Amino acid sequence: MNWLRSAFQEELDGVTQTLVDLSQLVSEAISSATHALVTSDLKEAEAVIAADDRVDDIQHELDARIIDIIARQQPVASDLRALVTALRMSADLERMGDMAHHVAKIARLRHPASAVPQELLATIEEMGKVARLISDKVGGIINSRDIDKALEVERDDDEMDKLHRKLFTTLLDPNWPHGIETAIDITLIGRYYERYADHAVSVSRRVYFQVTGKYNSK
Amino acid sequence: MNWLRSAFQEELDGVTQTLVDLSQLVSEAISSATHALVTSDLKEAEAVIAADDRVDDIQHELDARIIDIIARQQPVASDLRALVTALRMSADLERMGDMAHHVAKIARLRHPASAVPQELLATIEEMGKVARLISDKVGGIINSRDIDKALEVERDDDEMDKLHRKLFTTLLDPNWPHGIETAIDITLIGRYYERYADHAVSVSRRVYFQVTGKYNSK
Repeated sequence: MNWLRSAFQEELDGVTQTLVDLSQLVSEAISSATHALVTSDLKEAEAVIAADDRVDDIQHELDARIIDIIARQQPVASDLRALVTALRMSADLERMGDMAHHVAKIARLRHPASAVPQELLATIEEMGKVARLISDKVGGIINSRDIDKALEVERDDDEMDKLHRKLFTTLLDPNWPHGIETAIDITLIGRYYERYADHAVSVSRRVYFQVTGKYNSK
Repeated sequence: MNWLRSAFQEELDGVTQTLVDLSQLVSEAISSATHALVTSDLKEAEAVIAADDRVDDIQHELDARIIDIIARQQPVASDLRALVTALRMSADLERMGDMAHHVAKIARLRHPASAVPQELLATIEEMGKVARLISDKVGGIINSRDIDKALEVERDDDEMDKLHRKLFTTLLDPNWPHGIETAIDITLIGRYYERYADHAVSVSRRVYFQVTGKYNSK
């Protein structure tokens, strides 16, 4: 029985490790996508777009593996919940990859021009940094199940919301000189970073719930 | 064994019925949200916003029920896959409810003014109609597992994309007279309808895959 348990535990650990790997991949993706966006780097944008297929493949493989573990091990109670939660986390992480991919696509679309006007570069760069910080932290939390870190992520997300509002304040300045197309790009870019962070928060809340049995929703 | 099988089948049927119920609720929500938006109806907008809690509650209850069925019945192979797929569909449907909620929030934010300028009312109304058509169809597909209907949804989604592009064409007209705030609203509204339809397509593809064992991705 102990032997069975530890074989199962090993499979769970493998699932956790793949979730951590996914969080690293999407962290790198949002970081590169931001860099491609603020420097109008076409090659980097295309690399992010291409790399998203890998995230999707890993997610599909992981989901199939989780379902296979459920079918073979027939876990109940907390083990089953942990596996279902892993399915949801993998969906969140895959979606974070999509957001990085969307940012990179706007960079590619506007190349060789920049989608981001000069006065917003710093804000967008900062959003990219916060996004990366959050998903790096989330990777750590998946692994460590550190609930204090999970609470930190909520505050990091507040920081993202603040930056998001700052974007809109700049757009809505009556002297905004960049016209509608740029406003559309910035609106979408802002939404992508915000959603990226939302999905990261969702992952960290799932860990929080698994560890404490309580919902952590502000 | 037959008796057991039929008790299990009854539980699966119950899950299917709740998914159909959810699709009806989000269909009504996107319909009302659209109406609230194009008529600047504050009460209707607030009703949509309030009703989203019910969608969330039903989804949470459904997810708990699905996990409980897996734990008790320990299904394997296609039964287990059907239940995992149901979890994913419920997440898609819940997200469609969020999109209707977001549309209603923009209507409320701009009330008593309209977020949508006169010349875009018809396009937005049409997007609302297509959104409702798609989710009504998806409700039917969840129930009937009719794969021809699932293919129809792809075409309906093309129609949504066409309307979405039309929005942008109007926004990008050099004579666009409505300024940045309206452009931001329309960009976000357009994105919400597009995402609503994407999630509906995702549900119909999951049904298609369950029935045929093949991916239906254009």
